[in-house]
Amino acid sequence: MNLDLLTRAAALLDTYKAKGWMIATAESCTGGLVAGLLTEIAGSSAVVERGFVTYSNEAKSELVGVPATLIAEHGAVSEPVARAMAEGALARSRAHAAVAITGVAGPGGSTEAKPVGLVWFALAVRDRPTVAVERRFGELGRGRVREHSVEQAVALLEEAVA
Amino acid sequence: MNLDLLTRAAALLDTYKAKGWMIATAESCTGGLVAGLLTEIAGSSAVVERGFVTYSNEAKSELVGVPATLIAEHGAVSEPVARAMAEGALARSRAHAAVAITGVAGPGGSTEAKPVGLVWFALAVRDRPTVAVERRFGELGRGRVREHSVEQAVALLEEAVA
Repeated sequence: MNLDLLTRAAALLDTYKAKGWMIATAESCTGGLVAGLLTEIAGSSAVVERGFVTYSNEAKSELVGVPATLIAEHGAVSEPVARAMAEGALARSRAHAAVAITGVAGPGGSTEAKPVGLVWFALAVRDRPTVAVERRFGELGRGRVREHSVEQAVALLEEAVA
Repeated sequence: MNLDLLTRAAALLDTYKAKGWMIATAESCTGGLVAGLLTEIAGSSAVVERGFVTYSNEAKSELVGVPATLIAEHGAVSEPVARAMAEGALARSRAHAAVAITGVAGPGGSTEAKPVGLVWFALAVRDRPTVAVERRFGELGRGRVREHSVEQAVALLEEAVA
């Protein structure tokens, strides 16, 4: 595990714990790594409520309620789907904040409009408007795209309580 | 990521793909790391169907249908709960095999009967009896207990197609 990210995760969990807030995750291209990072911290069960690894499109619809029509219209890697994943994870958990990640980690799965390294993030927080962030990491290789994606997800969770 | 485990994960996914089988995960103490490992492999979307990070007891009940009474009677770290997690993940996915992990990663959360390092695993495969495995890794530290747990989960998925 990345030590800098572990340190940030530990501080993040302290802040959430102090507020009495819990976190949910909805992960596609990171495949569980954000939840895996947060739960590396001892005592994380006070903050990490649940995670959804919505790798298939069916999982996105069935687990966090992303309308199949939204995926058909915009593609799984898109702002509307990222927003729906985050809002669905928030609604289907006891969490106060939910982060969602959907992207093209590569090397396959890219199109001209959606190149390798394109990742959409969304953060849903109770009683606040959902925010979405697009990142284009480029063709760094699958592992590094995923690592950068975990870091961006942590940054969103940090901003929510900053 | 552990290179040996990555190599094993890649071979595992090849085997599942050749059989047309998909995988689901239900993770408690590993918090998404098993799904995170499997999805590190390019092309894993053909095999990894979905994952449930059932960190809280409520998540175990709501996401994969573990009866709350089972948790109350046996504790979240127990053979019956591991079995119910695996069978619930199988039933609530399109997967052919589902692996479940629930354990005491530590440093907190242990009791005399359930020491740090105790982890229960279960593997549910369509049309086969579910198998469960108990491991006692000892007080290796949270990170290493989780790493060993990921390896044991991979071993169970390997055995299912051996």
